[in-house]
Amino acid sequence: MRKVLVIGAGRSSSSLIQYLLDKSTSENLHITIADISLENAKERANNHKNATALLFDVFNTKQRREEIEKATIVISMLPARFHIEVAKDCVDLDKHMVTASYISKEMKELDEAVKKKGLVFMNEIGLDPGLDHMSAMQVIDKIKENGAKMLLFESFCGGLVAPESDTNLWNYKFTWNPRNVVLAGQGGAAMFIQESTYKYIPYHKLFRRTEFLNIDGSGKFEAYANRDSLKYRSVYGLDNIPTMYRGTIRKVGFSRAWNVFVQLGMTDDTYTIEDSMNMSYRDFTNLFLAYSPSDSVELKFRSYLKIEQDDIMWDKFLELDIFNPDKNIGLENATPAQILQKILMDQWTLQEHDKDMIVMHHKFGYEHQGERRQIESSMVINGEDQTFTAMAKTVGLPVAMATLKILNTEITTPGVQLPITKEVYEPILKELEEYGINFIEKKVDYFGYNPMNL
Amino acid sequence: MRKVLVIGAGRSSSSLIQYLLDKSTSENLHITIADISLENAKERANNHKNATALLFDVFNTKQRREEIEKATIVISMLPARFHIEVAKDCVDLDKHMVTASYISKEMKELDEAVKKKGLVFMNEIGLDPGLDHMSAMQVIDKIKENGAKMLLFESFCGGLVAPESDTNLWNYKFTWNPRNVVLAGQGGAAMFIQESTYKYIPYHKLFRRTEFLNIDGSGKFEAYANRDSLKYRSVYGLDNIPTMYRGTIRKVGFSRAWNVFVQLGMTDDTYTIEDSMNMSYRDFTNLFLAYSPSDSVELKFRSYLKIEQDDIMWDKFLELDIFNPDKNIGLENATPAQILQKILMDQWTLQEHDKDMIVMHHKFGYEHQGERRQIESSMVINGEDQTFTAMAKTVGLPVAMATLKILNTEITTPGVQLPITKEVYEPILKELEEYGINFIEKKVDYFGYNPMNL
Repeated sequence: MRKVLVIGAGRSSSSLIQYLLDKSTSENLHITIADISLENAKERANNHKNATALLFDVFNTKQRREEIEKATIVISMLPARFHIEVAKDCVDLDKHMVTASYISKEMKELDEAVKKKGLVFMNEIGLDPGLDHMSAMQVIDKIKENGAKMLLFESFCGGLVAPESDTNLWNYKFTWNPRNVVLAGQGGAAMFIQESTYKYIPYHKLFRRTEFLNIDGSGKFEAYANRDSLKYRSVYGLDNIPTMYRGTIRKVGFSRAWNVFVQLGMTDDTYTIEDSMNMSYRDFTNLFLAYSPSDSVELKFRSYLKIEQDDIMWDKFLELDIFNPDKNIGLENATPAQILQKILMDQWTLQEHDKDMIVMHHKFGYEHQGERRQIESSMVINGEDQTFTAMAKTVGLPVAMATLKILNTEITTPGVQLPITKEVYEPILKELEEYGINFIEKKVDYFGYNPMNL
Repeated sequence: MRKVLVIGAGRSSSSLIQYLLDKSTSENLHITIADISLENAKERANNHKNATALLFDVFNTKQRREEIEKATIVISMLPARFHIEVAKDCVDLDKHMVTASYISKEMKELDEAVKKKGLVFMNEIGLDPGLDHMSAMQVIDKIKENGAKMLLFESFCGGLVAPESDTNLWNYKFTWNPRNVVLAGQGGAAMFIQESTYKYIPYHKLFRRTEFLNIDGSGKFEAYANRDSLKYRSVYGLDNIPTMYRGTIRKVGFSRAWNVFVQLGMTDDTYTIEDSMNMSYRDFTNLFLAYSPSDSVELKFRSYLKIEQDDIMWDKFLELDIFNPDKNIGLENATPAQILQKILMDQWTLQEHDKDMIVMHHKFGYEHQGERRQIESSMVINGEDQTFTAMAKTVGLPVAMATLKILNTEITTPGVQLPITKEVYEPILKELEEYGINFIEKKVDYFGYNPMNL
């Protein structure tokens, strides 16, 4: 039997583990599900005869090495910063490895050693990064193989709620780590290039410089720029492309309202608020507004953020109850971002029957035989329930498929990899279609980057 | 002869060294002026018989120790991060030390060793920090000694151009390190307390949350909040004061226009611009505006920043020539902040006959025998020329006076100190009056913090 060690049995591992269990008999697999919570691991193992649940601490070096030694291949679904310990053992003990995380500097440094041992370390093979790479490279390679020249690549992805669960004024709920949503866009200016002009957007303007996009059957969305779109030029082999932009998708109107939190300073995670424990939601809001001996917090808020009387955005803040003097923060030494997260979680936590939705959309502009053309490629997928979410499927299935294909020597190129070669993306994108994850391609007129025409 | 070693002969040391030279015969002093530029040192020494100019590298441990060993007292006018090497030698070699910089964590840690040796390490005895501490503590101590209770302390300081040199639309020129001006306010939210309400302002709102102040004889100014006003509560012994605010003074209208650079992202110092070397001023401005195939940089700028047709602010940007397609940046791998600094230096560099001006203003609110009262205290001083600037006088004279008073055992309390005790501020403030540096105090009605009444 081939042994797969899955480290980390959190929310994003459900579909991944289910896939492996479903194939375990025909493919002769045994799955060890290792987690810091034995309960989590057992839930994922679901008493399957080919699975073992294991209480596991990644910082227990002895246990870590023992379990990795027993495995044929290791999947790490831990938070990204913990992969490296696992990776070093995998090199040492001659095991393949798969992660859904960005290749870190430390991981990259293992490349030579991994290659020398003929191992495959496949990374960035979840949703974003992962599906985005694969679905983009499939089209880019096809365009290039036809002898055409790439002029434009824009790529958008977002984790949202499914339309039937879209019940609040923000058209948003937390379908993923809330902390990452609150901190999104921080840590440096967004950078991209449009028609050969570099563009830089500082964090405090990010949510006011959105672009709109239309997706057939799903309607209109907006997107704000991701941090660094420029580095993808070399990753995708598009070094001299005039337009390169990556963004995060939200329902229309979200960003303009979110910008209010940014403007106020409520997303700041760099300092703690005095006496956050005993503060009301209203007190918290008032921290970021000018002192006044007489004016209400509401009026100061409206006036400072220039929210007009008939602007529906106002109702979004009322819905979050941020002016409530009776609701208590109850967090000790909390940062503004931590407090905001708590307030949002009151309203944006998925309820039992809520379903999530993943939207991905690419635009490819190119010149072929003197003519300029454009292809758009979209994927929209809804979750089934709170376990087999769209997020779990789109993150987990590519990881699981890559794992099996490495075991079956369908994916063999050694080294620290990401899924940008045909060897990887072709069979995986094909198999994903069986699971309802497919991209709809259509040809459209070439616009170039021209926001007014979109 | 008593030997004074002055390390650092930059712009802010002129008045300091002149003072010591003037007193050198009567006070039996020899002044060694040590600088990384021998020319600088010689210019300051001015062939005075009691002065020696010395080529000096603070990182040359041997030379550093030798020179410190020869001295009776050491003044460090180096950039703040270099003081600690000097300070450690001073402890080791039993020398007093004086700086105009904030007490760093490393400096603070020497306190016990300094006390044990009976040495005085006087820090924060320039302008700001320095004169602000002394002039504030003199009034605060007086109020407290009368049995009154402090209710409010607001303190403002700014380095500006003198009215006769105020010749541009910004009413501003660089009278101090331009880099610090460009980066001012970055690195964390501004924090203060007003009428017992904590207030936090993020960087991107800092220059839109200014306060106005009137100074008799000098007119109306504005001020933006300094980073952390809260920590001064304990420094000044005002732990439970309801209002504590420190700000930086500018001429009215400066901050609203400066905010445009902040909004654009031009003050960002955390990343470098692609191909900054060959870029025009206009290209630089366009980096921060949306791409458009047809609209002008000017119109995009006006529209994005909502600058109306008849807003004089627009002329401030024209004056800086930021839309010029023919002026070249010419800086390799520069950050936005470095490029902005270069553009500003074209217009804001002091010309030969320009004079600077320092403005300091305090407000003290208190309750005495059931009545609420307020004192305001202001200082305005103009520079004489480009050498004996208001900045050099207000930074250097307190340093020089403290040095002499330590030598003459008028200031004796050992340890790592700042000038908040009567022993220090009383004689120094008194002597400063002889040099035209004096505070005008007046009693006004008590307002509390109430922005509408100001």
